[in-house]
Amino acid sequence: MTAAGLPMVVPDPALPARVRIHEVGARDGLQNEKGAVPTEVKAEFIRRLAAAGLSTVEATSFVHPRWVPQLADAEDLFPMVRDLPVRLPVLVPNERGLDRALALGVREIAVFASATESFAKANLNRTVDEALALFAPTVTRAIEAGLKVRGYLSMCFGDPWEGAVPVEQVVRVTRALAEMGCDELSLGDTIGVATPGHVGELLQALDGAGVPASRLAVHFHDTYGQALSNTLAALRHGVTTVDASAGGLGGCPYAKSATGNLATEDLVWMLDGLGIETGVDLAALTATSVWMAEQLGRPSPSRTVRALSHKE
Amino acid sequence: MTAAGLPMVVPDPALPARVRIHEVGARDGLQNEKGAVPTEVKAEFIRRLAAAGLSTVEATSFVHPRWVPQLADAEDLFPMVRDLPVRLPVLVPNERGLDRALALGVREIAVFASATESFAKANLNRTVDEALALFAPTVTRAIEAGLKVRGYLSMCFGDPWEGAVPVEQVVRVTRALAEMGCDELSLGDTIGVATPGHVGELLQALDGAGVPASRLAVHFHDTYGQALSNTLAALRHGVTTVDASAGGLGGCPYAKSATGNLATEDLVWMLDGLGIETGVDLAALTATSVWMAEQLGRPSPSRTVRALSHKE
Repeated sequence: MTAAGLPMVVPDPALPARVRIHEVGARDGLQNEKGAVPTEVKAEFIRRLAAAGLSTVEATSFVHPRWVPQLADAEDLFPMVRDLPVRLPVLVPNERGLDRALALGVREIAVFASATESFAKANLNRTVDEALALFAPTVTRAIEAGLKVRGYLSMCFGDPWEGAVPVEQVVRVTRALAEMGCDELSLGDTIGVATPGHVGELLQALDGAGVPASRLAVHFHDTYGQALSNTLAALRHGVTTVDASAGGLGGCPYAKSATGNLATEDLVWMLDGLGIETGVDLAALTATSVWMAEQLGRPSPSRTVRALSHKE
Repeated sequence: MTAAGLPMVVPDPALPARVRIHEVGARDGLQNEKGAVPTEVKAEFIRRLAAAGLSTVEATSFVHPRWVPQLADAEDLFPMVRDLPVRLPVLVPNERGLDRALALGVREIAVFASATESFAKANLNRTVDEALALFAPTVTRAIEAGLKVRGYLSMCFGDPWEGAVPVEQVVRVTRALAEMGCDELSLGDTIGVATPGHVGELLQALDGAGVPASRLAVHFHDTYGQALSNTLAALRHGVTTVDASAGGLGGCPYAKSATGNLATEDLVWMLDGLGIETGVDLAALTATSVWMAEQLGRPSPSRTVRALSHKE
C-alpha cells in the first residue's frame, strides 16, 4: 500500500508486462438489470469507463429486443458513444444484428457460442453445430466489411446440466470459431466453477491444438470466489486479455447460481500490485462504479470498490 | 463441476499435495462479533468444524476480557471442546494468559506480534521490540511445558498508518519470533492489501533469511478480493499451512477498512479443484457456516457458501 491507498508494486517475471482489459459492464452487466436504465446513463457510464483508461468497452448488444429488452436502445445508444477514442465492440447474434450494427458504424462485433449442448439448447435453442453454422455467414460478412470479430464461448469449464466440461469439447468449439475467422476467443466460466489447474489444462490443450494464448481472452465469474486466482493462472499461461465488469456488475440470467463477473477494480488492484500495465486509473474507475451503483440503487459487489469508497 | 456440484479435479504439479488449514473462525471470527454469542453455540461451532474435517481449530483467546469481552468465556468454553480429536490452539498475550491456558490443559498456544511500529502501538501500546520482549518469557515457559507455539505477525504487507511495509522489517520480526522458539509463523495481511508478487517477494526473502516456507503459514484478508490469489502465490512458494475462517467470519476491529478473513469454503473449493488434500468435507463445512450464520442472524460473506446453499 502506498500513501494513496494502492498496493506495493512487486513484479513477477513469469507474468506479462501488460494486460488489456475487455470491459463488459455496460453490456454483460446491464443486460441483467431488472429495471430500465436510461440510455443517457448508459452513455455516461461508457464515457466514464473510457475516461478511466479502459481501452475496450463493450457497448451494447444487437440481440433482438424480445430476448434482451434491457439493451433494446442499442440504436439510440451507440451513436452517443461512437466517437470515443476506444474500442467499442457490440454483441451481434446473427446477420440481422450485423446489418443493424453496420448501419451505425460499428467497428467490432462479438458473437457467442456455447461449449456444451445443454447450454446451446437453453440459450440459443440450437445444437452447438447449428449455432456455429448460424454464426458463420455473420462472421464472414463482418470480416469482409473490415470488422474485428470476437467469439465468446460459454460454459468452458462446468455446465449446470452436464457437470465438468471435457477439455476436448471446448477445444473443438474454440477451433471452429478460430477457423471461422474470429480473431479473439473469450473462454467463459459462465457458472464460476473453474479452478486454476483446470484453467491451465484448457490453455495448454488449446495451445497444442493451434490456438495460442495470444488469441485468447478469459472471462471468469466469481460465483465461488475463484475469478481472480483463475485469472492469475491464465496470466501464467500467457493470456494477456482479461474480461471484467466495472463494479462486478452482471452475471448470466440463464445459469444456475451465477453471480457477478470478475470486478474490474479487483482485477486492477492485483495487476497494479504486480506492476502489470493496464492504462486504467483505479481511483477514476472506482468513482465510476460508485456513481453507477447510485444510478442502480444498490451497492457494488466489488470488494475493492467497497474498500476504496469506505468512509471512516 | 461434478454432478455433486464440486469442481473438476486438475492437479498442478508445481503445488503441494496436501495443505493444512488453520481454522480461525471460532476465535478470530467471533472475537469481532458485536452481540454476545452463547458459549454453547461456540462449542457447537467448534465441534461441527472438527466434524467437517478441520484438523486445527483455533478455539478461543486468553487475552484479558477487558480487551476482548467476546471471548471472556474462555475458561468455560475450552473444557467443553478439549477432548475433540483435533488441534485446538488458543491465543495467549502474556504469562497470565499462559497460566490460565495451562490450568485448562491447553496443548497449543499462539502469541501475536506486529511487523510495524504503528500497529504495535495501536494494538499493544508497545514498540515492536517491547512486545517481543514481553512475549519471550511466555514463549519460553510454554515450550518448557511441552506446548506448541505459533507466532502471528500482523501488518506484514501494508499498514494503514505506514503504507507499504518493507520486506526487511517483516523478516526481522519473523526471525525474532522464530529464534524465540515459535515453531510456526503466520504472516498476516491484516488490511488485505497484498498482491501475489509481494507475497512471493516476502517468502523468498524469509527463505533466504533462514525461515523456510515449511515453518510459515499465510493469513490473508479479502478486503480487496485478493486473499485467494495471494494464497495461490504462497502455495507456489512452498507454503502448506493456510489460515482461513469458516464462512469468512471476522476481520480486525483496529484495522481501517478491514473486512473478513479468507473464507475457508472458498479456499477448499480451490484446493479441491487442484486435487490438494485437506481432509475437509466441503458440504459439511458449508452446512456449518450456514448454521452459524443463522445463529449470528446474518448471511455468510463467503461466495462459496452462498452459491452452495442457494435455493433455486
